[in-house]
Amino acid sequence: MIKQYLLAPGPTPIPDEVTRAMAATIVHHRTPQYSRIFSEARQGLKTLFGTQNDVLVLASSGTGAMEAAVANLFSPGEKVLVVNGGKFGERWLNISNAFGLQPIDLKVEWGKAVKVEAIEEQLKRHSDIQGIFVQASETSTTAVHPVREIARLTRNGPLLVVDGVTAVGVFPVPLDAWGIDVLVTGSQKALMLPPGLGFIGLSDRAWQRMEKAKLPRFYFDLKLERKSQQKASSAFTPAVSLVFGLKASLEMMQKEGLENVYARHERLARATRAAATALGLKLLAPESPSPAVTGILLPDGVDGEKLLDYLRDQMGITFAEGQDQLKGKIIRIAHVGYIGSFDIIVAVSALEMALSKFGVPVEFGQGVAAAQKVLMETLR
Amino acid sequence: MIKQYLLAPGPTPIPDEVTRAMAATIVHHRTPQYSRIFSEARQGLKTLFGTQNDVLVLASSGTGAMEAAVANLFSPGEKVLVVNGGKFGERWLNISNAFGLQPIDLKVEWGKAVKVEAIEEQLKRHSDIQGIFVQASETSTTAVHPVREIARLTRNGPLLVVDGVTAVGVFPVPLDAWGIDVLVTGSQKALMLPPGLGFIGLSDRAWQRMEKAKLPRFYFDLKLERKSQQKASSAFTPAVSLVFGLKASLEMMQKEGLENVYARHERLARATRAAATALGLKLLAPESPSPAVTGILLPDGVDGEKLLDYLRDQMGITFAEGQDQLKGKIIRIAHVGYIGSFDIIVAVSALEMALSKFGVPVEFGQGVAAAQKVLMETLR
Repeated sequence: MIKQYLLAPGPTPIPDEVTRAMAATIVHHRTPQYSRIFSEARQGLKTLFGTQNDVLVLASSGTGAMEAAVANLFSPGEKVLVVNGGKFGERWLNISNAFGLQPIDLKVEWGKAVKVEAIEEQLKRHSDIQGIFVQASETSTTAVHPVREIARLTRNGPLLVVDGVTAVGVFPVPLDAWGIDVLVTGSQKALMLPPGLGFIGLSDRAWQRMEKAKLPRFYFDLKLERKSQQKASSAFTPAVSLVFGLKASLEMMQKEGLENVYARHERLARATRAAATALGLKLLAPESPSPAVTGILLPDGVDGEKLLDYLRDQMGITFAEGQDQLKGKIIRIAHVGYIGSFDIIVAVSALEMALSKFGVPVEFGQGVAAAQKVLMETLR
Repeated sequence: MIKQYLLAPGPTPIPDEVTRAMAATIVHHRTPQYSRIFSEARQGLKTLFGTQNDVLVLASSGTGAMEAAVANLFSPGEKVLVVNGGKFGERWLNISNAFGLQPIDLKVEWGKAVKVEAIEEQLKRHSDIQGIFVQASETSTTAVHPVREIARLTRNGPLLVVDGVTAVGVFPVPLDAWGIDVLVTGSQKALMLPPGLGFIGLSDRAWQRMEKAKLPRFYFDLKLERKSQQKASSAFTPAVSLVFGLKASLEMMQKEGLENVYARHERLARATRAAATALGLKLLAPESPSPAVTGILLPDGVDGEKLLDYLRDQMGITFAEGQDQLKGKIIRIAHVGYIGSFDIIVAVSALEMALSKFGVPVEFGQGVAAAQKVLMETLR
């Protein structure tokens, strides 16, 4: 009997409250019953995104919401600047290319944050940049980019399109206050839901820009979607049970208090980093680490893929692997979503035991002790 | 947000497989649909109890099954010997008194196992003892009694009636092989179910004895019950959903393998004891400790009730308290039922943190490390 612990950056564990809400008897989506639930969820999303505008719910993964941003706001051949500091930066590039935009590939070393000056320089060099694409938290490299500072550059310039997939609900990314133009996320991260919902919020400027954007869209036609969702309906069939769960998860976050949710993520991240450091391990993104997920470099000679297989199959612990050039070299321990103090203790103690099995000299309890010291902060 | 961890000796955590089985659409209990499920559960129970005879399922708690043993096997005024080494030993006394038996109160120091010689002596002194009542695992003191050795004394003597509530499914207590006459348990321990089912298995000798037992019984009339349950039905309305869950939990135990289930409990218990010892704490039952639950004496000056409230309300960790003269002086950490290695890590790290909050000098990670060393044994 091996109990399962899910500590990957999505899907994350799902609270009983959400599971139970999703198990409610299905209703038809063209009914007042559905609309009542969806209306409440809509309100909660506005608070979460920090916006007075609509946050639209799509029956798609987060990538669908990313595509919606591109397809609804730009026209063929337009120049855009892509902050490419990881797999999800690359995804902005790939979507831009698929839709016939002209992306400028602003490469950032994996594990680092983009320098605001580098963006400033590109904006000076290319006066015709229509949009900037960036990740608030680059899940693949566990680094955060300085969205707030970038937004200061774009107020009267190109649209700022932010992938908030492991950021929204993890740390503040207020759309209105920071002047972000587009913010997207998915359901299976801080929202503590299964995958299947994409979310997108847009500034007034973005909604205006949409009028002249000529890229083709149908399923992700946000104007059509907004018209329906403002009437607490949807243009196409919504993912009804996931919306039930969404209402429940937003209520949980509201009950905990958004500030407390942010503080929890930050504390769990600090505990994880302290544990890794106490074990003599190096962090992948020490200068600008994400509160959603911690990347840890493995000691030489440890095969990360084998280590993760061992943790998952022998110990029941699912962490995430490194991607592309980091494959086998790092592990990523997530602390996003429905994760509490003792999940970090489990993660760290499992890592100690697995590393020891793989021949790394480990003093048992050393990482745990470092985490405990941070986690004690919550105890009154 | 405080996640909840249930580490008390019942109810114990419930696996998803069981919860989902219990959520199945309710069926009527006088149908082939119900009988099919109950038949399978009946087979699994025989294996679990180590008997060829019937194991009857009662819609009651474990205490109901204890009462059934008394009411079906004895007559008013009969002399019985009660091994009274804790709260549940006292319960045998109380039931015996309530039904007008003449119990001999064989007191055993809390935390100790009864000495077989003490029972032998009583049997010599009182040749008219009709039954011996004992706990296989005395949950309140976390000690096990030597049932196998006691059974050697009773083969041709009084009936041996064993409370197996935190023993059946935790360590071997085979009814037929050891010559136990009655073995009872409840659903909310090793069977990983919610409370609400009592179980009772009886030897041929006990079934024969029942014919002349004159104590009154109606709801717990085991002869009536056996007649119905042999037809995969029940004399009175059964707890249908719990029986669905029972089938699922027995399947899980079968899949894990009973020997592995026993080994797991034993290992988790050793890890817990090693952790407590590493933290400089004393065990309540060091000589004969239960694999189901570990009693730990608290350092002087620590109020156990306040400590447990703190663990539960501030940290989400539910341990059990001490009872009667042990109230406030001990805690009991359970490792019975759906408990895995990392539940022990959580328990120990939480105890370290809580003790530190209560002013006990604790070196963080020291108990965890001791537990980790034991838990590593499972890792290939």
